[in-house]
Amino acid sequence: MEFFFKPRGIAVVGATPSPGKGGNLIIKNMLNGYDGKIYPVNPRYEQIEGLTCYRDVSDVPDPVDLAVVFVSSSLVVPTIQACAHRGIAGAMIQSAGFSEAGEQGRKLQDQLVRIASETGIRLWGPNCMGLVDAVNKRVFSTVETVIWDAGMTPGNVSLIVQSGMLAGAFLIDVMTRGGIGISKSCSIGNKMDVDESDILEYLMADDDTAVIGLYLESIVDGPRFMDLCRKSTKPIVLLKGGRSEKGARAAMSHTASLAGNGAVVSGALAQCNVVAATDFNQMMDICRTFGAFTALKPSRNKRLAVLTYSGGAGIVSTDFFEDAGLELADLSPESCERIQQVFPDWMPAANPVDLWPGVIIHGAKSVYNACLEAVCQDPHVDAVFVHNFVGGFALEPDMDFMVSAAKSVGKPLVCWLTGERHAVHEFQIKAQQLGLPVFREIHRAVECLAAFMEHHPWADVPVHDTLETLNPDPVPAIMPISLDNQTGVLDENRSKAILKARGIPVVNETMALNEREALAAAQSHGFPVVMKGIFRGMVHKTEAGLVRLGVKSAQEVEVVYAELLTAMDGRGTVLVQQQVPQALELIVGMIRDPQFGVCVMCGMGGVLAEVLGDTVFGVAPLTEGEALALIARMKSCKLLDGFRGGVGVDRRALAQILVRVGQLGLENKRIREIDINPLIPMDGMPVAVDASIILNG
Amino acid sequence: MEFFFKPRGIAVVGATPSPGKGGNLIIKNMLNGYDGKIYPVNPRYEQIEGLTCYRDVSDVPDPVDLAVVFVSSSLVVPTIQACAHRGIAGAMIQSAGFSEAGEQGRKLQDQLVRIASETGIRLWGPNCMGLVDAVNKRVFSTVETVIWDAGMTPGNVSLIVQSGMLAGAFLIDVMTRGGIGISKSCSIGNKMDVDESDILEYLMADDDTAVIGLYLESIVDGPRFMDLCRKSTKPIVLLKGGRSEKGARAAMSHTASLAGNGAVVSGALAQCNVVAATDFNQMMDICRTFGAFTALKPSRNKRLAVLTYSGGAGIVSTDFFEDAGLELADLSPESCERIQQVFPDWMPAANPVDLWPGVIIHGAKSVYNACLEAVCQDPHVDAVFVHNFVGGFALEPDMDFMVSAAKSVGKPLVCWLTGERHAVHEFQIKAQQLGLPVFREIHRAVECLAAFMEHHPWADVPVHDTLETLNPDPVPAIMPISLDNQTGVLDENRSKAILKARGIPVVNETMALNEREALAAAQSHGFPVVMKGIFRGMVHKTEAGLVRLGVKSAQEVEVVYAELLTAMDGRGTVLVQQQVPQALELIVGMIRDPQFGVCVMCGMGGVLAEVLGDTVFGVAPLTEGEALALIARMKSCKLLDGFRGGVGVDRRALAQILVRVGQLGLENKRIREIDINPLIPMDGMPVAVDASIILNG
Repeated sequence: MEFFFKPRGIAVVGATPSPGKGGNLIIKNMLNGYDGKIYPVNPRYEQIEGLTCYRDVSDVPDPVDLAVVFVSSSLVVPTIQACAHRGIAGAMIQSAGFSEAGEQGRKLQDQLVRIASETGIRLWGPNCMGLVDAVNKRVFSTVETVIWDAGMTPGNVSLIVQSGMLAGAFLIDVMTRGGIGISKSCSIGNKMDVDESDILEYLMADDDTAVIGLYLESIVDGPRFMDLCRKSTKPIVLLKGGRSEKGARAAMSHTASLAGNGAVVSGALAQCNVVAATDFNQMMDICRTFGAFTALKPSRNKRLAVLTYSGGAGIVSTDFFEDAGLELADLSPESCERIQQVFPDWMPAANPVDLWPGVIIHGAKSVYNACLEAVCQDPHVDAVFVHNFVGGFALEPDMDFMVSAAKSVGKPLVCWLTGERHAVHEFQIKAQQLGLPVFREIHRAVECLAAFMEHHPWADVPVHDTLETLNPDPVPAIMPISLDNQTGVLDENRSKAILKARGIPVVNETMALNEREALAAAQSHGFPVVMKGIFRGMVHKTEAGLVRLGVKSAQEVEVVYAELLTAMDGRGTVLVQQQVPQALELIVGMIRDPQFGVCVMCGMGGVLAEVLGDTVFGVAPLTEGEALALIARMKSCKLLDGFRGGVGVDRRALAQILVRVGQLGLENKRIREIDINPLIPMDGMPVAVDASIILNG
Repeated sequence: MEFFFKPRGIAVVGATPSPGKGGNLIIKNMLNGYDGKIYPVNPRYEQIEGLTCYRDVSDVPDPVDLAVVFVSSSLVVPTIQACAHRGIAGAMIQSAGFSEAGEQGRKLQDQLVRIASETGIRLWGPNCMGLVDAVNKRVFSTVETVIWDAGMTPGNVSLIVQSGMLAGAFLIDVMTRGGIGISKSCSIGNKMDVDESDILEYLMADDDTAVIGLYLESIVDGPRFMDLCRKSTKPIVLLKGGRSEKGARAAMSHTASLAGNGAVVSGALAQCNVVAATDFNQMMDICRTFGAFTALKPSRNKRLAVLTYSGGAGIVSTDFFEDAGLELADLSPESCERIQQVFPDWMPAANPVDLWPGVIIHGAKSVYNACLEAVCQDPHVDAVFVHNFVGGFALEPDMDFMVSAAKSVGKPLVCWLTGERHAVHEFQIKAQQLGLPVFREIHRAVECLAAFMEHHPWADVPVHDTLETLNPDPVPAIMPISLDNQTGVLDENRSKAILKARGIPVVNETMALNEREALAAAQSHGFPVVMKGIFRGMVHKTEAGLVRLGVKSAQEVEVVYAELLTAMDGRGTVLVQQQVPQALELIVGMIRDPQFGVCVMCGMGGVLAEVLGDTVFGVAPLTEGEALALIARMKSCKLLDGFRGGVGVDRRALAQILVRVGQLGLENKRIREIDINPLIPMDGMPVAVDASIILNG
């Protein structure tokens, strides 16, 4: 991929001298800092912007290992053929008019993919804004030159974006504000060949990149992407567009119907420690926070000190802590003593540390600095949140002191800033250079600090990962029934037989072929029992009146048996089941996601499912540690630990079931969906009470 | 209050010629625009800033109806005495060092309160930043003069703030940005005399104010404040600091323990249609959105059209709609046809309307304007969200057209803006003048538009208010037992007797004095029954083993009776109760809040209470309409409508109970707290199954 990022020479196909046109902007942007060779290609001109212009790609001299293509879509195919023929390693196709533009465009794109696979040329785009590398001043993009006005703030955050806007309009916005530094911004457009994973892999190894932010609407190869994220030593922040789009897949199982609304993606991202962002500026803010703290290893505790010149701002700050998973630190007696020295006598040292009354007496600098030093050195403080004002009130912050006080103790420090407009702008630019994350909203500051404290690839290994993390079931289950001649929904007891063979506990049950067998089964399971009418293809047994709970005696068995047979017109058989005492209901399931493959779902059942929609997804294969982490992501997971003194659910046993359900899906391609609903704990151990396996075809 | 806002002459006590000092800033700020008389008062000077300086307040000539006081706290009491003696109607005390500053300061403040009540002088502050009136250029404040640099953007949003920061530092920030216009900013400090309600009442009648924003840490008189909010024809937006502070009240009941974390305040605010804000800029953003749309009456529907130059931004926008209670509009065939005319053939018209491919062909102006006009005139569209870029890409928006297209059809239109820094600033300033709310974050734009669509005093009357809204129980209940000699927790059956007398349905139950009575009671209620051991002061019956469910026969009654008596060492009696079938459990309660008085609580019980904390509060007296609205605020209220085909809970019957619980609290001052837990529906009608009434003393 080096030829995309550090080409020795570039052919710009579609270059033009007309100001404002894309083919001119590309040349101008290259002339602004790129130190390799630039070869405009356009048969209509001799020279463009003082550079020799070539008739055709084949005429371009060495060295040339990249083509940037901005010609009308109908000319792109011959251009790429010529590039491949010329031996150019890669092409960035910035022209539009491909798969995004109807049937004809899709055909053109297919031709390009074919050329790439036949010739080995790597194709970036089409329909993209190419590359902006602010550190090395390599801008291979149609972005407006106004982006240079603020000096192209270099930084250590690199972006991979599936939207031209983010690499153009938004990047100009960010760059001209100057408060965020960028390394590389990679606009991947239709990503027909080079995709997010290719670039992610490159950036993971790129010395100029410390943090990677992504905006994606789709993920081409989910497992590869997850694998890279897992391996990344750099924080990865992802904004996934399209959360609210209902999944297009036909949902035969409850699990599948719950897999929409981005649930699968957010599960997958959580599984590989990617930070999920929700908005564009918010993504950038999270990225620059990580970018400022690359040298820090955050503490497992999350106790914050707040230094403010406003009691009100201190209060509003702490109001956000609980939801963000942060705590207000209890300052040590030593800190309190130090703070007290710059406080008026009547005012006890406390956190939030309200500096204003002290500032009136001693001036801002000495009070800010004394308190800052005290809380930075306080062993009960893990991170510091400082409020500053610039442009009046004699509150000018001592930024160098702030930054060094925090850096010397390895604690993150973020700043909420208000002030006069120009003073604010200057402060933000200097802060960016010093690695001090500055925010204009309290909530955003808290949110970003919380993201940093929570997610980081270099974090301490969580407790659950100390458990066995290898797949505990290396041997595939022997299928108790053949799936060869089956399609659609498998009936309840066949579904459970398969689960049982995979080591998933199921409720005791017997298929009774006649009344006598039903009675024997009931007596063997012990009264009361559940009796269900089972026939091929019937999914909604309860609604069809084919489920009878609490059958208490031999006499009742007789009556119910006859009733069920009648209800089924003699078509089915009767299943006699142990009745599980009422307890917390869970749902476990499996689906195949087009982006991530086999995914496992775990959620609260019954009334909680109805109200909370509390379900979480993970991508198989799951390790036991990942399954435990997945369980812990349920909003109401504390119910698993027992409620009102009742027995809870053994989390490891539940995790085991999730691992095995995933394995079952991976091993048997015929299985399309699995629903275990409900899964109910008996003496704490979860047991599948009802289940359906849905087959392809 | 007129003398605070439009004084004919002002004595500035503590004026000084020293630049940068508060006593100088006040004078300079007044000289910048105030057209009344300014009388500096300071015995040390003859002249200050060219104005005659007076030795003492008593020397100040007419007209003078306001004193602005900025002297050290020890001099404030004699100053205010002198002001009152001089016949000055009001004083704004901007000095600090009062109740916020320890015991001594508190005593000084008490003296001031006494002078006010004895002489009738109205006192604003102390410890405040006074008034900034940007419309009339009346700045009676120590705010830095840098605030004038941006021209003191006038607007129709007035602020009442209990934090100097918001009236100083933050106001400078807002004013110098220029994107928000302010009418009056009132910093009320310690609000020892003039409080938020006094100023709210004034601003509600102020012609220069269309929207009122408040930051408060406490509310002096909750019922008065609510009453004003209810009467207001202007939108009120409130940021309440201190949400996360645990309620300091001792919690004897479950209800009281749930009343912390701002639950009471947010219930009270929702009850009187106040918009709750969470952060400072967010509050301002909501205010300016309402301020821009004062002439609009939003539709009850919330169908949005999104016009964007970026597919990605369109997707991210709609991702926020569902949570915000907004919908993506289905455009009418007519709109689609109009849009199609400026779209390329291969691209079908859809919402979000992605303008970019059209812009490439026809240019930004014609495509934006054609699509804007189409969606504005579309009867399926209630509001419009436009994305703009300024400073490049030939995307310059036609702001005048945008604003007039939306205004001509009376629909709100908001804009998400990116662009080059200077161009953005210019756009924001012009947009503020034209009444176009511009946002830099997509989420914020959606949030503010949603707030406008949801809350508005001039909204259509919601359905529930068409039900009877008068207190349905004008006659107080006759108390079945005297509370005179009782304190603490009343036992279960006495508590329920009182509830029953108030018309609240309770479970059938009988106190049995002996085994024979227990048996008779059981037979009369019908098996199975519940038997409980009751003795004075026992609250946690279940934990003490004094609750036996499912007593099924005469024989069991005998055994259980004996066991309960033994468990109580013969101290108590046995309560025999009808056993209510398991169903949705609710909790209803009452507390006395120091700010709002009698408050009623309603929430989900059982497992849902544990996980969701889904409880809501309202302030009594409740109308039935308010009680229904309160019920509808529960996150899981849809469960009340029946779950899995089961019978739900009659909302009107539940509302009736809430109304009556509130009445009971209002009528009986001795009742401190009430807990009905659980309240369970029988055939849909809620019945109190267990209850405690807690008395004062």
